[in-house]
Amino acid sequence: MINLEALFNISYGLYIVCSGDKDKGNGYISNTVFQVTSEPARFAASCNKNNYTTELIQKTGAFSVSVLHTEASSEIIGNFGYKSGKDVDKLKGVNLIYGETGVPIVLDECISYYEFKVIQTVDVGTHILFIGEMVTAENIDTTKEPMTYLYYRNIRKGFSPKNAPTYIDKTKLDTKSRDASYKRFKCEVCGYIYDEAEHDIKFADLPDDWVCPICYTDKADFVEI
Amino acid sequence: MINLEALFNISYGLYIVCSGDKDKGNGYISNTVFQVTSEPARFAASCNKNNYTTELIQKTGAFSVSVLHTEASSEIIGNFGYKSGKDVDKLKGVNLIYGETGVPIVLDECISYYEFKVIQTVDVGTHILFIGEMVTAENIDTTKEPMTYLYYRNIRKGFSPKNAPTYIDKTKLDTKSRDASYKRFKCEVCGYIYDEAEHDIKFADLPDDWVCPICYTDKADFVEI
Repeated sequence: MINLEALFNISYGLYIVCSGDKDKGNGYISNTVFQVTSEPARFAASCNKNNYTTELIQKTGAFSVSVLHTEASSEIIGNFGYKSGKDVDKLKGVNLIYGETGVPIVLDECISYYEFKVIQTVDVGTHILFIGEMVTAENIDTTKEPMTYLYYRNIRKGFSPKNAPTYIDKTKLDTKSRDASYKRFKCEVCGYIYDEAEHDIKFADLPDDWVCPICYTDKADFVEI
Repeated sequence: MINLEALFNISYGLYIVCSGDKDKGNGYISNTVFQVTSEPARFAASCNKNNYTTELIQKTGAFSVSVLHTEASSEIIGNFGYKSGKDVDKLKGVNLIYGETGVPIVLDECISYYEFKVIQTVDVGTHILFIGEMVTAENIDTTKEPMTYLYYRNIRKGFSPKNAPTYIDKTKLDTKSRDASYKRFKCEVCGYIYDEAEHDIKFADLPDDWVCPICYTDKADFVEI
């Protein structure tokens, strides 16, 4: 039996994974980046086949990873996590550098960054696992703590978007123990769920100019689930 | 340039990975387990080629992952993390069940567990990356938080053993900013470093019956580095 709620106990950080070059670069928010060997330092990153960044990693054979800190703004998470690089230039106005492989590396609201050359590509179904050999690792700001996915979910009330390896369809979770007096409303744009059980204010009482905390969509675009 | 200290900002949980069967099972502590796809739920685990558990995963084609909580004892971490299953029966006296694939699953001091059938094996150098399809996921105790590697390192003063993908040889770290009045002593058995800068008491002033917090080796087996 698979109890999806048990998956919430796997720990992850929150990263901006970038690829491309000076002409066309892109990045997205990922929580599935980890070290697979220490000598030499090699990492694996699981990237959705539908992500534009995945296409750029396959083209350039390189990618960067920047570590978001706990105070990273909803703006940067919304920009990189809930929009597609096929529609907008996500790197516009972002403070970044280009690494020795030529890929963009985001510095804004991050504490460390790493750069990798792809040495293996593994098809794992809906995602591709890129195995990268580390060519650069540097600290930007050592005064802050890395954002963890637990912190993002519990403190910041965030969640995985549909393309993430850790996406969970909340409608599949066991809801038998819920108090029926609390309603839930879902953002039709990004999927964010406003659960009244987690807030001090009923959805109907939110001001009319209230917007989705993740993607800034109007209150009117929420539907009750 | 690679600044090894920047690698400390990657977030991980702490898990007991097990394999084998009722006749001969084994497990070890891992921090490199993560989800790679959501539909279906597939995970990757990076396992050192020298680990006995790796051999058992290759033989049985299955493995389990149990999530340690923040209050997990040094005894369980010492047992699974710093001993070899080639020498001792690590599962002796441990509260466990056997999953539908037949592998042992540790319940002691854990909050959730998962069980996987291996569907792909990727050689990434010193380690093998096992891609597993989830067959079981369950919560054991939802009142506790998952142990993170950051918590283990900062609060519990733990570190990665030599076979871990995230092992860092501390002698390679930049020490130019260290205060020379603090000395460092290394456990010759497990590699734990007692750094006086991180403690209120000098190593020489520790009582004679003090033992390594990780592997319980005598104080006499520490050497200054």
